[in-house]
Amino acid sequence: MSFPDATPAEIEQTAQRAWEAFVVYRKTSWKQRAGLLSQIAEALRARETELIALAMSETHLPEARLKNEFARTLFQLQQYGHALETGIWGSFSIDTAVPDPVSPQADVRKTYVPLGPVAVFGASNFPFAFSTAGGDTASALAAGCTVIVKAHPAHPHTSEMVAALIQQAVRQCNLPDAIFQHIHGASPTVSEMLVKHPCIKAVGFTGSYAAGKALFDIARQRKEPIPVFAEMGSVNPVFLLPEKLSRDTATVADMLAGSITLSAGQFCTKPGLIFGIQSEALERFTTLLTEKLKHTQAQDMLHEGIAHAFREKVQLARHQQQIRELIPFSSSTHPLEAKPVLSITSASAFMANAVLHEEIFGPYALIIGCKNFEEMLEVAGQLEGQLTCTLMATEQDLQKHAALLDVLILKCGRMIFNGVPTGVRVCMAMHHGGPFPATTDSRFTSVGADAIKRFVRPICFQNFPDAFLPPELQNENPLLIGRIINQRLSSSKIV
Amino acid sequence: MSFPDATPAEIEQTAQRAWEAFVVYRKTSWKQRAGLLSQIAEALRARETELIALAMSETHLPEARLKNEFARTLFQLQQYGHALETGIWGSFSIDTAVPDPVSPQADVRKTYVPLGPVAVFGASNFPFAFSTAGGDTASALAAGCTVIVKAHPAHPHTSEMVAALIQQAVRQCNLPDAIFQHIHGASPTVSEMLVKHPCIKAVGFTGSYAAGKALFDIARQRKEPIPVFAEMGSVNPVFLLPEKLSRDTATVADMLAGSITLSAGQFCTKPGLIFGIQSEALERFTTLLTEKLKHTQAQDMLHEGIAHAFREKVQLARHQQQIRELIPFSSSTHPLEAKPVLSITSASAFMANAVLHEEIFGPYALIIGCKNFEEMLEVAGQLEGQLTCTLMATEQDLQKHAALLDVLILKCGRMIFNGVPTGVRVCMAMHHGGPFPATTDSRFTSVGADAIKRFVRPICFQNFPDAFLPPELQNENPLLIGRIINQRLSSSKIV
Repeated sequence: MSFPDATPAEIEQTAQRAWEAFVVYRKTSWKQRAGLLSQIAEALRARETELIALAMSETHLPEARLKNEFARTLFQLQQYGHALETGIWGSFSIDTAVPDPVSPQADVRKTYVPLGPVAVFGASNFPFAFSTAGGDTASALAAGCTVIVKAHPAHPHTSEMVAALIQQAVRQCNLPDAIFQHIHGASPTVSEMLVKHPCIKAVGFTGSYAAGKALFDIARQRKEPIPVFAEMGSVNPVFLLPEKLSRDTATVADMLAGSITLSAGQFCTKPGLIFGIQSEALERFTTLLTEKLKHTQAQDMLHEGIAHAFREKVQLARHQQQIRELIPFSSSTHPLEAKPVLSITSASAFMANAVLHEEIFGPYALIIGCKNFEEMLEVAGQLEGQLTCTLMATEQDLQKHAALLDVLILKCGRMIFNGVPTGVRVCMAMHHGGPFPATTDSRFTSVGADAIKRFVRPICFQNFPDAFLPPELQNENPLLIGRIINQRLSSSKIV
Repeated sequence: MSFPDATPAEIEQTAQRAWEAFVVYRKTSWKQRAGLLSQIAEALRARETELIALAMSETHLPEARLKNEFARTLFQLQQYGHALETGIWGSFSIDTAVPDPVSPQADVRKTYVPLGPVAVFGASNFPFAFSTAGGDTASALAAGCTVIVKAHPAHPHTSEMVAALIQQAVRQCNLPDAIFQHIHGASPTVSEMLVKHPCIKAVGFTGSYAAGKALFDIARQRKEPIPVFAEMGSVNPVFLLPEKLSRDTATVADMLAGSITLSAGQFCTKPGLIFGIQSEALERFTTLLTEKLKHTQAQDMLHEGIAHAFREKVQLARHQQQIRELIPFSSSTHPLEAKPVLSITSASAFMANAVLHEEIFGPYALIIGCKNFEEMLEVAGQLEGQLTCTLMATEQDLQKHAALLDVLILKCGRMIFNGVPTGVRVCMAMHHGGPFPATTDSRFTSVGADAIKRFVRPICFQNFPDAFLPPELQNENPLLIGRIINQRLSSSKIV
């Protein structure tokens, strides 16, 4: 059974209903919204076994991996609800009136208003955590926005089942049905019509640069441009600094081998580029990483399209000048299967060739040997925007090569010290984002409760009677939250 | 003496220098930046008399108005510096490591990194507070960005003198000269080249819709799209609710007359549309407002271009169907002079005619009579995005007409109760922004210390050694700021 694409009439109706539901839903309390998120988590939890089995059959991801992702999805729903209820998700400011006879100042109080219906486009590689009930849906619902998810065509049945469970939770909370709607659309015209619809006020997307940039361009050309939060992947450069590399060669090689091949390298945070300074230690590291990757088993990729793209991109890369293959591509009789591929090149060849800067989605990495630290610094300066940059370094290394940290800070959303970029902790302090082309809006994260801020805008109330203010701004501080009152953080009431 | 437009070579050099200075300036401490803002304020204050005289000659604004604006400009510089030093301007999160044996969690800490060089385009109507040393410059410098101001061609000499004083302050602080640069350009190609330059990473603009939207379109078509914060004006609708109107008819008419004609109506927050329900009270109000405006003296507008545009737009409006002129346009022998113009129409005529929804910059307002509250609600629902909406109401009115507040909240950035939209308090809780087309990015304010957030993006550090973290994230909390530690607001150190 397959699902037909939504027709123009269905898209029109879906968008209209999303707006009508929004007008009601935006007025719910934070507590009610947290309750809905919690109810969605419960509805999903009750059907975990079937959901995992369905996702396994559609995505070919292993059970353990999907179980982790499923747990993370429930955790996100709960955590964003908690951030909402405690008020920690936002910043609420109050400047009380100054009854100065010469220059009296008004009472001004600032909170947020949700943007409106949000169109969510899930990821092929995260059927749960970045799809139908994933981070975008959770944060948009937390913000008070209604949601239309376009199912990812790589896992439509999983998406359909998750959607039905969300809708069941919505009903159990006695909220309007159209708070959450679900459509299918293998054709890009469905996405285009949805993003162009005047009732849609924001877009959440996780996927390729080509698809994300296309949505961004459509949204910006509307009569009323709308924000697009597209997370479009990254090559996640890793920099091996000399003392660390010679001291912990094997550990570093092991960590990176694991990260490169995790889920067949199908993470937007997979480390794709590894920079080192030519040395005996880098040679040892190269040998160890090659050995480690050679002995990693072949894994199934998500679908034939992705496996095909991996082959194509790897073939393109190997035919570039001054590339030496350490582990060449090995074909398999199984069309989904991929084995790790590793190559090495020089910094000068890398700098001269834009093809080598591109993300290859799958178990692939490229080692780049730099003549010296100055060349490493130069190549770092040429990198495009990234989700993450990783430093493998001792503290001594950091001290000595501080200029590298200075350059990388301008390139990424997350700086990692002696770790791997895969494994994104879901927490308040997480920033999963980064300068273009990693995302279309570097000022917002798609992981952690700050993701809620993507779907609201500030509004302030001037001289309003207390009873007509939203609770977060009332004198009594009924929600018991922290607020900025006359330029000072405070959890007190105003007397 | 006039100033020649910057040449392409000069723009290139200016942008390159801005980037080079940025790499140094972004590493300054919050205290240093606050020091610079304070030094700029001092440098300006020392030359107040000359600056006011120069601005008077270029803008034809009265002395008292310019003195107020000048004081506000100094206040902004001081206030943003204070917000920076106390850390109240941002949100800093720390999630400490969880050494769980099964699922260990990394230490993650989030702060901001400035975006890069910012191009600032000042406003004709605010030679100080929204121009060369205005809110955009102050907040970009606070954020750690370098600034290139393109002088407004309506007050180039004032801009030149302010720029020289800023540069003097930069030198006194021993900071690189190119932290602040100033160019001239009457031609739009100067603006275009500047916004297209790869070294420019954000744009601040205050002015017309046409010019702001043009910059927005250029910025999004770049290879690397950049954010544009354009504040493009607004018609600032005012809603007169029945009880308030009949109780305080004269007071409301007086307040609005003052606000419509303040500085010859040349404020982006001027109330341009006044909605009431057809009634004896609305007739009395109309008579009183007409009388009051008739007796308001003619004022000089900023320059001939603006005075001409005012005449043209007023002529266009009067020729629309079902418009009745209460105070027709009266021509003057003085080409800069403008007298208040007032018209009235019906809600149905207003809804049928997009021309009437447009901002007319100058001392003009349109009263719109609604048949009943339902029609008022309908017309409110059709308004475009606004900087402000104002309710003239008793609490009883608010209670009874809650549906109107519900609609207006979705239309604007600031809701005013029984006040006028002109006079924007510079404070933390201010939101001077609003949905498109009022601005190109409704999520940010251009007034108040939150304006600093426009020019930074978040970055997080994972498992970094404490000594290599920026001070706002270090365990000791050396800046003594409030932070979100493990989901709770805290001013403590981490032990």
